[in-house]
Amino acid sequence: MRYPRQATISASSLCYNPFRSTATKNLMERKIIAFRQDPRREWIAVLECGHTQHVRHNPPYQERAWVLTAEGRQNFIGVPIECGECHLTIRHAEPRDFYFVTTVINDWWEGRNMRDMLPKLFFTHFRDTSFIVQEQSNIVGFLNGFFSQTFPDEAYIHFVGVHPAFRKHGAARMLYEKFFEVARANGKKIVRCVTSPVNKTSIAFHQRMGFEIEAGDVEVDGISAHTNYDGKGESRVLFFKSL
Amino acid sequence: MRYPRQATISASSLCYNPFRSTATKNLMERKIIAFRQDPRREWIAVLECGHTQHVRHNPPYQERAWVLTAEGRQNFIGVPIECGECHLTIRHAEPRDFYFVTTVINDWWEGRNMRDMLPKLFFTHFRDTSFIVQEQSNIVGFLNGFFSQTFPDEAYIHFVGVHPAFRKHGAARMLYEKFFEVARANGKKIVRCVTSPVNKTSIAFHQRMGFEIEAGDVEVDGISAHTNYDGKGESRVLFFKSL
Repeated sequence: MRYPRQATISASSLCYNPFRSTATKNLMERKIIAFRQDPRREWIAVLECGHTQHVRHNPPYQERAWVLTAEGRQNFIGVPIECGECHLTIRHAEPRDFYFVTTVINDWWEGRNMRDMLPKLFFTHFRDTSFIVQEQSNIVGFLNGFFSQTFPDEAYIHFVGVHPAFRKHGAARMLYEKFFEVARANGKKIVRCVTSPVNKTSIAFHQRMGFEIEAGDVEVDGISAHTNYDGKGESRVLFFKSL
Repeated sequence: MRYPRQATISASSLCYNPFRSTATKNLMERKIIAFRQDPRREWIAVLECGHTQHVRHNPPYQERAWVLTAEGRQNFIGVPIECGECHLTIRHAEPRDFYFVTTVINDWWEGRNMRDMLPKLFFTHFRDTSFIVQEQSNIVGFLNGFFSQTFPDEAYIHFVGVHPAFRKHGAARMLYEKFFEVARANGKKIVRCVTSPVNKTSIAFHQRMGFEIEAGDVEVDGISAHTNYDGKGESRVLFFKSL
């Protein structure tokens, strides 16, 4: 049988977009051409545009029992769903982007003062490893990274931010994958970054992106961390990923 | 005539050092071998060790009318004075230096919160362009810089700090000159950095070090600045120096 599309994968529930007008709605529907599993064995739909979308069965939040059977998945081959990433474009960062980012960064972090941690120099002197994701003309995400001067085969991701309404839309993944691509093209073998042990969302994201955790001196909720890594009271989880 | 040394250039007044014991006092006396002028036509004594020391006539703070005449300067050739820089050694920064710097940085800036502006990554991934100045085993200054990825012939100085008791002892000059040397050796043609228009000491220091000011959109006390350069309300003076 073929399930009615809206009952199972709704474009609107997959992709809430405060910027998009109803006039452009459904313009980015793309057919499912295959399914595959991520490293945690969760199902991903591969779309005709080459982008992918998680189609999790995670009751009671996401009811998609069909994805667990070969027959269920087969029934969805050819079904068009809205592609979050087809709305998004990625480009290198420019110094002018700093002015936008600096005005929204504290809001995107729910009022935390993150401003001082991001000087303009990353948008000026590390443009080739810094990226902006846009939805039409709106900036909805940024990444600032660099190639290590000390370790010629290493690249480092310093700061990543995504507009709260665009999280889980693939924006962060686009930014990381673009960074990996540029790092690989420049002969880098490893990418590093750090996060706070309390940031469970960030830890889970990095694990999904294929990062491993460098063993530290303490365990926080089952995750190995490095005490006082970034100064007193500032423990960190250290990630690395081989390219 | 030959002036009595202590009456004119006192080692103790030139170089207050809270770390040094009386046992080591005068161990670093070096003979004056020549005099020259800086770009602002102030007099500098060149010592036998190769280091230099300003010998300003700036009454009523510094009374050295003798330095203004050729005869007066000639009388001081061969006179030993304490060399502030011979006490100081310079080396590349290491990640472990971050832990010391992060504990003193706010004190060195008289309580201002500068901590967030200096992540550990500069001590890890930019070691070849970051330096530490020590007085014996004590860290008394640091510089974090990098080579621009975007502009292959440019180097950038991000952060420089000197222990308050070691300012005017040549520590900052040592750090900058080491950075220039490494930048030159790596084919860089220009060094850039920024400071706040209210930081008159920093502006004067950069001018003494041969930096020029990039013309901005506003003038603050006769100095050209760039409004909102580092975000809203954060105007900056932009320096550049050709190597």
